[in-house]
Order: sequence, then structure tokens, then C-alpha cells
Amino acid sequence: MSATFGTSFKVTIFGESHGKAIGVTIDGIPPGVSIDMDKVSFEMKRRAPGQSKLSTPRKENDIPDILSGMFDGKTTGAPLTAVIHNTNTKSKDYSEMKKKMRPGQADYPARMRYEGFNDYRGSGKFSGRITAPLVFAGSIAKQVLESSGITIGAHIGSVMDVQDERLTLDNATPELLKSFGEYHLPLIDRSKAKDIESVIETARDAGDSVGGTIECMALGLPAGIGNPFFNSIESVLSHLLFAVPAVKGIEFGSGFDIANMHASEANDAYYYNEDGNVKTKTNHNGGITGGISNGMPVVFRVAVKAPSSITKTQDTINIESGENVTLEVHGRHDPIIVPRAIPVIEAVCAIGILDLMQTR
Amino acid sequence: MSATFGTSFKVTIFGESHGKAIGVTIDGIPPGVSIDMDKVSFEMKRRAPGQSKLSTPRKENDIPDILSGMFDGKTTGAPLTAVIHNTNTKSKDYSEMKKKMRPGQADYPARMRYEGFNDYRGSGKFSGRITAPLVFAGSIAKQVLESSGITIGAHIGSVMDVQDERLTLDNATPELLKSFGEYHLPLIDRSKAKDIESVIETARDAGDSVGGTIECMALGLPAGIGNPFFNSIESVLSHLLFAVPAVKGIEFGSGFDIANMHASEANDAYYYNEDGNVKTKTNHNGGITGGISNGMPVVFRVAVKAPSSITKTQDTINIESGENVTLEVHGRHDPIIVPRAIPVIEAVCAIGILDLMQTR
Amino acid sequence: MSATFGTSFKVTIFGESHGKAIGVTIDGIPPGVSIDMDKVSFEMKRRAPGQSKLSTPRKENDIPDILSGMFDGKTTGAPLTAVIHNTNTKSKDYSEMKKKMRPGQADYPARMRYEGFNDYRGSGKFSGRITAPLVFAGSIAKQVLESSGITIGAHIGSVMDVQDERLTLDNATPELLKSFGEYHLPLIDRSKAKDIESVIETARDAGDSVGGTIECMALGLPAGIGNPFFNSIESVLSHLLFAVPAVKGIEFGSGFDIANMHASEANDAYYYNEDGNVKTKTNHNGGITGGISNGMPVVFRVAVKAPSSITKTQDTINIESGENVTLEVHGRHDPIIVPRAIPVIEAVCAIGILDLMQTR
Amino acid sequence: MSATFGTSFKVTIFGESHGKAIGVTIDGIPPGVSIDMDKVSFEMKRRAPGQSKLSTPRKENDIPDILSGMFDGKTTGAPLTAVIHNTNTKSKDYSEMKKKMRPGQADYPARMRYEGFNDYRGSGKFSGRITAPLVFAGSIAKQVLESSGITIGAHIGSVMDVQDERLTLDNATPELLKSFGEYHLPLIDRSKAKDIESVIETARDAGDSVGGTIECMALGLPAGIGNPFFNSIESVLSHLLFAVPAVKGIEFGSGFDIANMHASEANDAYYYNEDGNVKTKTNHNGGITGGISNGMPVVFRVAVKAPSSITKTQDTINIESGENVTLEVHGRHDPIIVPRAIPVIEAVCAIGILDLMQTR
Repeated sequence: MSATFGTSFKVTIFGESHGKAIGVTIDGIPPGVSIDMDKVSFEMKRRAPGQSKLSTPRKENDIPDILSGMFDGKTTGAPLTAVIHNTNTKSKDYSEMKKKMRPGQADYPARMRYEGFNDYRGSGKFSGRITAPLVFAGSIAKQVLESSGITIGAHIGSVMDVQDERLTLDNATPELLKSFGEYHLPLIDRSKAKDIESVIETARDAGDSVGGTIECMALGLPAGIGNPFFNSIESVLSHLLFAVPAVKGIEFGSGFDIANMHASEANDAYYYNEDGNVKTKTNHNGGITGGISNGMPVVFRVAVKAPSSITKTQDTINIESGENVTLEVHGRHDPIIVPRAIPVIEAVCAIGILDLMQTR
Repeated sequence: MSATFGTSFKVTIFGESHGKAIGVTIDGIPPGVSIDMDKVSFEMKRRAPGQSKLSTPRKENDIPDILSGMFDGKTTGAPLTAVIHNTNTKSKDYSEMKKKMRPGQADYPARMRYEGFNDYRGSGKFSGRITAPLVFAGSIAKQVLESSGITIGAHIGSVMDVQDERLTLDNATPELLKSFGEYHLPLIDRSKAKDIESVIETARDAGDSVGGTIECMALGLPAGIGNPFFNSIESVLSHLLFAVPAVKGIEFGSGFDIANMHASEANDAYYYNEDGNVKTKTNHNGGITGGISNGMPVVFRVAVKAPSSITKTQDTINIESGENVTLEVHGRHDPIIVPRAIPVIEAVCAIGILDLMQTR
Repeated sequence: MSATFGTSFKVTIFGESHGKAIGVTIDGIPPGVSIDMDKVSFEMKRRAPGQSKLSTPRKENDIPDILSGMFDGKTTGAPLTAVIHNTNTKSKDYSEMKKKMRPGQADYPARMRYEGFNDYRGSGKFSGRITAPLVFAGSIAKQVLESSGITIGAHIGSVMDVQDERLTLDNATPELLKSFGEYHLPLIDRSKAKDIESVIETARDAGDSVGGTIECMALGLPAGIGNPFFNSIESVLSHLLFAVPAVKGIEFGSGFDIANMHASEANDAYYYNEDGNVKTKTNHNGGITGGISNGMPVVFRVAVKAPSSITKTQDTINIESGENVTLEVHGRHDPIIVPRAIPVIEAVCAIGILDLMQTR
Repeated sequence: MSATFGTSFKVTIFGESHGKAIGVTIDGIPPGVSIDMDKVSFEMKRRAPGQSKLSTPRKENDIPDILSGMFDGKTTGAPLTAVIHNTNTKSKDYSEMKKKMRPGQADYPARMRYEGFNDYRGSGKFSGRITAPLVFAGSIAKQVLESSGITIGAHIGSVMDVQDERLTLDNATPELLKSFGEYHLPLIDRSKAKDIESVIETARDAGDSVGGTIECMALGLPAGIGNPFFNSIESVLSHLLFAVPAVKGIEFGSGFDIANMHASEANDAYYYNEDGNVKTKTNHNGGITGGISNGMPVVFRVAVKAPSSITKTQDTINIESGENVTLEVHGRHDPIIVPRAIPVIEAVCAIGILDLMQTR
């Protein structure tokens, strides 16, 4: 059971990569919201494959077909359903994939979970392609949040050992966050782009792929959003972020570094600024204390593993013969998933924050 | 809205630190389960204050009073409610706490969230004390899991710069995991205990407190538990883990280190062992692929910040006068929360895994 | 799984009739609401046994003990938990009850559902006593609704063949609805009280019991509350109303009579009254069209069966011996449950309407 | 918020009558279930318009397009989404409908609920057409239930004053329940068909429409399904049944008649039959005691009002001009909705019972 998330802004996703279509139903969008479909398309394109020489050359026209919930360009208050047709599904031979469990992929656990009946073609229900509906829903959520003065943006934290700068209280602006969307490799320090490209290309040429981190910020969130315990901001966002394939770690604010701090450092001291607004001098807690926003920027980082499909020979099992075998996964693979995951991370962040705001 | 979590093993917590009582209702325990109350008490005591010279000297008799759901020593299938009375709530003067927002605590965001009506005494709803009901529920979940051959245990990952060894495919056994409960400072390398005590005492003597990390493992989980996307194991566990106060980061398997790996390394290759069982050679994915268990040990680490209440003078605001002020928090505080958080982490891990198993 | 209901005003009930206590946790009460505990006690007393010669002489002091969620007489926004201790549980011999399945009671289905581990003493989890926590939660909901100008009241629709008048657009006023609480046999036509008493006493003297109907109205609900399809007002209210033991039928507005009407009659024609407010000339739809309130009074009737526990000899089975046997249920039983069910019906109506209003 | 219902067999519906499409996502179907699409089509056709001279002559090809969740003719365990395209939506002038609130329809409450942004064309989200996805989901649920020996069938209880016989312990068989699907006017006493046709035609010729009742039974449900209080069988089924447009009343077993019975009659006495199975002599409780099935047939009746759209002149309001006006609704309307509602009632009954069985 994993199709639906949310309390008030409720998102239900469906689809398998090689079925007819994938899609999403959003329940709980307020009526009367004007949706800018160009912005939606822009976000969809950021995630789509084939946008860069660093991505898979596989092209998909991820054009959402809105079936319900919109009338005269505005939301009706009824569930909004969008469908994305699977047009580029080659009817190739998947018989090997059925037997040989690809390491790092869901083949084996899915087979155990669904007793062998899951659609294994192209990872089926587990395909990264299912993040497209999330980006669609997130682009709606982003537009609702923007109308409340909240901006969300993410950039590359690192690719292997190449690090970008971090978002700080000094450098973070709505303009910077928005500008990330213009680049396939969004960076604060744009001089790092070349090094990153080089790392990716080297791995790709070796039949391998690379991991990295993504840093995301929500700017403009007022104090008082969220809850203690079960529905803390961290709980809701991490639930959604770990729903994104390949994410294996999350840290808010200073995250794991906070474990090395004394309270006198970690305790982000409050002060009134010259305008009489409550601020903290540091932001080690990433804008969240006790599970609730404190008015400072919400910031987090996620660890994203290298995409599992590589051409390098790997050891694995043949689940039907019961033998240890080797495997080479051919096809059009991404040598890195971080750039295409960035709009997905922004999307689920927007979904989670909007749901928390609507359920206050 | 944050009182209830879970789909099938559903936990509802209630209470404020200075109200009459705190407690928990568990809905969805199968009928006929024998509950060993000594084991429950043992877990409660691990979390309770005053168990060690490294903890607050404040004593609380956290004896759960079971109001329903048990009959003749077995669960009835009806909701099980346990209440823990707040006996040690000094009626001291909290007027300063109402005005001066303690840095690192929920005082300010809670005031914004609840429009000033929250019970601010001793952090109220945000008190770490509310983790006692979680430990109670977790101790029930642990007993149900144990009867299915699943063992959960956690130890100190690090305290400031002192690191313990990690749980690995080589050293992890049910016996080791169970043994952690016997120590206030559970460690794989027990020789580190002295260094850790020293770090804690130094901070305490300076009126400060320290952070650390906790590593937790679930051993014996069969392959096929969990879900793709919204209810992945990582999603459900992180949701619960970030509900625990002071947790600011989570990583599964190799976590943030996986971001620096090529897929050829990160892809935990499968093999049949001599008994014909499916295993992976490495466990960088922490026993979870595609959100579903793959049969290897589930392992994760959390970052825990230093407890916020310190006697050192801190800068903050007086929310009633609108002035920048200083604050000294006197009282019986923990110089570290990691040891007392360990049974809480185990508890929420057990709650999450049992809920996932029951909702297959 | 049946302990929790609601989306925003979320009610979790617990307890068995012969355990230590029963109770309720309410999550989602807005912070800062002043609760009049006298009004709560008044509602509790309406439901309590022993209030009338027509009720069981069994006395219970159903005094709710509030454990959390209140501070300085106001709600804090944290979950409010109230416990009612079971003080009048005679430790009599229940061994016959374990074997002989009482007709009309949940003994047999409960045994099947819970594999024999349910607490069978005094109906356990199935006891009408568990409605006391519902009345507590409802009395909170009623107070919140009253502050929005919404009044809820219920009276006897009928007892066997003795009918009271119906609530109509002409006779329904907030004052009338409130006055119902003052009587053990609330009636519009008070002259029917004697006939009803006589019907009840005749049955009681014969070792039997009687059924009846209850009519309930919510006055002052604005148009636009509710939802199409799954969360229609009728859906939410009927879900809660059928949770009340002994309810076997529900009809909104003209209910089953509407099945005999042409649309030209059933279609409650709209008009603007002299004040320019939208009204309908008739109210066959009971204030609800398309699942949503239309601004007219919400009115419904429920059928309540006779309490099952009677002293008359009944045929049944001995589930342990596998034999057909006879049974006489001795004890202090209600010869009718309608009067004590009235505050319960009002309570769940208030819970449902408030939840719908808070989740708009 | 009304798009999703269910805990384990979770149904999400979407669509407006004049949008691109309507549809449904079902989460929680077990993997590996063979779906007979002919049976699905058969159920869809029972509900579709234009199947009889007694129904609207409007033709709709309600052919479900399955987008996901099926592979090689079997369910995959992933969410199953089916879409039904809206092909017969005439782009006529809806401007009058926007202003003049049709009595008995959701026009006015919907306008209040959605602040005027709802798609008002052809009732939009409130259209009876949205029951087509429910029938689709129900036909899947029915097939799963049938494989467990559970049969569901419904017939006309009454049309205006013409009554069919009732389903009883004597006449109810799986064969009878299944046979109902073969008739547009399913009846136990087929001699009543002519009278019913006559009543319908008389009303239609007068520009009016008629109401009626439906009786539905689930045969083969084992004892022990359901829950006390919030998720009683009656609670779950009534929640779903009142989601069906035009339903205004529900009664289980003897329903409102039970209110006139003494307990000695209402208490369905248990006995062991010759095969040693537990039975009750009567079935006044409709197979449900304490919210849980007792092994006897589950039976209920619903009251269905006459379809609101009639050509007869009606009084109403013009919400834009603020005036009292008259209205004639032209078009292709049903003079009765009962026959087309029968497969919908069966469908939601199947959905509810399957969800209860899967969440035990």
C-alpha cells in the first residue's frame, strides 16, 4: 500500500514504466487556483530524460494530460488527475531481466513482495519514471506556495568528491533558488560544473555511474508550521524524500555535523533584528525546532546513490535456475541521477510543506 | 495533528510533561499475544532519567498503568492503553519560561503554532518525556517481532569525536544486539566508554551538553517487506525517527557515504550462499532496495543533537517585552541525550517495522 | 481496527467494560477553547445509568479525568485525553457467559473475530459503556459548534408503536433542541411520556425490553459543508451513528418516505425569503444535497433495537460443548436503551459535523 | 476531501461529467488475481445509460481503459488505474445552469462549497456518472470475493408503492443473487415488472420521475468480519452507500421495523444446525451483531430518491440576479434511477466488504 500520501493536499500516484500510462490524482487543491501550465511543463522537462549529454539519450515526451479538476484554467476543487502516456516503451526481450536479479535494483525484493506478479519490465512500478507524476504534483504545490511567498529550490551538493558551496543565511535568496531551474547542473559555484562533468564522463566511459548529494531550501515559510512528534516537518518531508528512488540519507540544517556540536553552538540563539522580526544567529536546526518551523530557512540535504543500471559486468543470481551468474545491463542509462532528481526533490518538498500548511 | 501514526499497528500518544499523565493507545495488536511485563519495564527503565551519573539526577517512576486491551496476561485485540502518571512535576515558577524563548527548544515555534495556549511548563507537549509512551509501544512491538525471529538493537555510533565501531555483516548477531540493553553506554568496542564519559563530564562541568549518533539494526527481517514510493521502509522509519526530539539526520546503509560510490561498488551484488539462501556481498543499501527489504540486515544511523537545556548563559528574546535578553536555564538537565534516546530509537524502529509487516 | 475516527477532529476511543478504565483521546481541537466542564458533566449524566426508574438501577460515577490537553481551563492544541474509571465492576462469575453465546449480543462474532481472546466480561469492548467516551468527545465538539451558532438536539421519535411528533421547519428552534436535554424522555409532545413509560414497564415486567427511534437535528449549519461522494455528510454521520451499539437503520430528511415521492415533490424548491436568504420550501433532503449542506436544518432518524439482555428464557448455543441450550440473563438491565442513547446520538452527530467543518 | 476511501482495498475516484475523463485508482488489490474483463464489462453495462426504454436514451460507451496494475491478464500488486473517457458531452449552452439552481441537485451547495469554481456542466463532480468508476472497482472486488465464496446481489425493493418480495433465509441463494444481473428490473417476483414499468412510464409522461428502494445481500460472508464501534460493517457499508447519489436512507436486517420489536423477538436466537454449523433462527440483525458478521446473510435496504432532473416546471432561485424564478430542465433524463443504481449498490457493498476482510 503505497499509492497515496497526504492529509489535506493528498497525492495518489499510479503507473508502471511499461504499462499504458503513469499519472497522479491530487485531492485537496483549493478551488479557484490559476495554474500556469508553462511552469508545469518547465518542471516536467527538468526531470525528463534526454535533456543533456550527461543524461540518457532516451527521449520521452512527458506531457501531462489533465483529465479532471480544471475548468476555465482554474482548479475546481475536485480531484485533479493528470496522465502521462508511456510512448517510448520498446517491446524488447525482458526474459533475462525476469530471471537475473539486477543488483541495486528492486527486482529481487519486488519479486518477493509481489510473489512474482509484478511487472518487471523496465523496473515497472519501481521505475524512476514514476517520479514524473510527483514532479507534476509538486509543480502545482509550488505555484500555490509561491502565491504565499514561499520559494523552493535545490542545487547539487556534491558529485562524488566535487563539492558545491552550501546555502547559508548569507547567500540564500528567492532569486538564487529560482535560478537553479535554469541549469542541468545547478550550482552556487558555477565554476564546479566542469569538474562535475568530467567526473560523470569518466564513470560513464568506464561503464559505471556516480552518486552525489542534493541540497534543498524552502524560503519564506512562516514560523508555526508543522507539529510535535509524528507529523514534524522533518517526519513529513523525510517520508516523501525517501519515497524518491536512490535517496539513502537525509539531514536537516547541520544534520550529522550537529552530532559534533555542544548545545551552546547548536542552540541557534534568537534575536530581534532591526525590523523587530525574530531571527536566529545561526541555522544549525535548518529552520525547524520541535518539528515546527521557526521562521528561518528550511534546509536539508539528501544522499543520492549512483544509478544501478551499468554496463560493467556484475555478479548476481539467476532466481529461476538458482545459480550464481554474471550480468551486463545494456541500454540507454543515466551515468548520474542527481541532476534529474533535483526537480523531484523540490517537488516532494513542496508537496509536504503545502500539506502541512493546509492541515494546520 | 500529530497524535496518531500507523496503518495496522496504530499508535496514538498523548500527554504533556506537567499535566496529570502521559500515555499511549495501541490499536491493531493481534489478539492472544502474551506480553512479558518485565521486558516492558526493562525498556522503560533504559529510557527513564536518573539511571546513571551521566544522566539527570531527576528520578521518575515511569510505571505504565495498563487500562485496557489486556485480559489474563494476553492482548484482547481491543485497543491497549497505557498511562504513565506525572509524579515529579515541581510546581515551580515557570513565568520566565513563558517569556524567554529557550534557544534550541520548541518554545517559540510552539507559541506561534498554538497561538500562545500551549502548556509551556517543562516543554509541555514537546518534552522528551513523551518518548516514554513510545518506548512502551515499542516494547510491545519488539515482543511481537521477536516471536517472528526479528531482533532490534542500537548502540552509540559516536559521542562528539569519539566513534564506536560499526555494525557489519561480520559482527552483527542477535546476541550482540540484545546485549546493548544491558549498558547505559552500549558500545561494540567497550574500551571507548571511558573516553565518552570523559567527553560528557567535561561538557557538563562547563555548563554545556554534547551530541552524538546512534546506530540501529533490525536483524532477521525477511525479504519482501515494505513498499515502493510512499511507504518505503525508509519513509516509514524516517517518519517515526524524526518524531523523536533532537534527531536531525538519518542515513540507511552507507548513507551519505554512498554518494561517493560508483554503482559498481554501491550495487550490493547478490549471491547464493552455501545453504542456497540469497545474500548480498556488501550491505551499502542497509537491507533495503526499492523501499523493500532484501533479506539483509536493516541498518541506519541517526544524528542526535546536544540537549538544549544548559546552564551556560545564552542570548535570546523576551517575546513579551520584545527585547533581546540573556538566559540561564537552571535545573536538573541531561548533559547528553544519546544513551536515553537509544531505547527510543529501537522502539520506533520496532513500531515501524511491525506496522509494515502487518499491512502487507 | 476501529479505535480512531476523523480527519481533523480525530477521536480515539479505548477501554473494555470490566478493565481498569475506558477513555478517549481527541486530536485536533483548536488551541485556546474554553471548556465548560459543567456542560460536559451534564451530558455525561444524561447517558449514565441509574438516572431514572426506567433505566438500570446500576449506578456508575462517570466522571471524566482529563489527563492532557487542557491548561488554565483552555485547550492547549495538544491531544486531549480523558479517562473514566470502571468502579462498579462486580467480580462475579462470568464462566457461563464465556460459553453461552447471548443472542443479539456480540459474544459469538467477537469470539470469532478475536479468536477467543476478547475480554468477554460484561460485553468487554462491545459494551454500551464505551459510548461514555463518545459523549465526552461530543460534549467538547458541541461546545465548539455552539460558538459557531450550531445547535444539536435529539428526542424520542418513537417507542414501539408510540410516536412523538417530528421536528419540522415550523417547530424546530435552538431552544427546543436544547430543552431536550432536561428530560429523561425528551419529547416534542410531552403528553406521550406516560404512554411510553407504560410500554417500557410492561415489557420490563415481562422480562423483556423494547426498541424505538431517535430523531436528531443540527440547526444553524451554513451551506457548503460536506463533500460529494466518499465524505458526504450522510456518509460521515452514518459511519459514526452505526458505530453506536443497537443502531440498525438511518434515514436523512424524509428518508424511506422519499422513495415514494415523485421528484416534483422530493426536489425541495429553493426560494429567497424576505431577508434575501436562500431557503427551501420543504426539507425532504434533510438539509443535505449532493452530500453537502444546503443551509436548511440537518435532520435524521435512527432505529434503535431493544437492549439484548433480558431475563426471559432464550434459545442459544454452548460454544464449548457444541450443544443447543437455553439461557437466562440475570442482572441489572435496561428495559430500553433509547433515552440513554439520545445524548450519544447527539454526541456523534457533533463529532462528525465538527470534523467536516474543520477539514473543509 | 472525498476522493479516497478504504484502508487496505483503497479506492480513489476522480473526474467530472464534462471533463476529459473519469476514473478510479485501486490500491491494495493482491498480486496475481486474474481479472475477467467480460465480467467487468457486464457490470459496467448494467449501470450505463441507454440500456432500456425506461432509462435515458443517452448512450455512453463506458469502456474502461486500464492504464496500470495489470500484466499478462493478472493484477501486479501495483495501483490499478482505469479511465473512462467522456465521449458524449454535448457542448451545449450551460449558462442557465450556472445561474438557476436546480432543486434536488448539488448546484447550490456545490457553489457554496467551491466558491463558484466547480465545473457546473452536467453536475460536474456531482454527476451520477461518477458512479461508473465505482462499478468498475466493485466488479474487481466482486471477483476477489467470489473466489472466497461470497456472492453479492441486489434487486428492486420497491418502486413507489409497488413492492417486490424480500430476500429471506428461505429464498436467498447464490444463484438467485447472480440472476438479478440479467434483468434491467431485477425482481424476486417477476410478475411485478409490468406494474413497475407502468408507474415509471406514467411519471415520465407527466414530466416527472419516481423513487424506490433497493435490497442487497452478501451471501457467504464468514463470521468474524468487521469491528466494534468505528469500523463496524454497518459503518463502513453505510459510509460507502451514502456516497452513492440519491441514497437517503439505509437499514440493515429488519432495520426500522426492529424499533417495534421486543428483544425476545429481535435477538435472533442461535442454534447448531444438523451439520454442526452455527445459525440463527431469524435474521433481524441482517447478519451483523456488534458490528461484526455472525455468519448469516448480510442484508440491507436503501432508499433512493427520484432523479432530480425533470421537465416539469419548478420554482427556484437565480443566484446571480438574486430573484425567485421558475425552471424547466430539458434533456435526456432518467425517469427512475433505481435500476441503474442497483449495480452501484452491489459495487460499493463489495468494495466495503473486501476492505474489511483485507484489514482484519
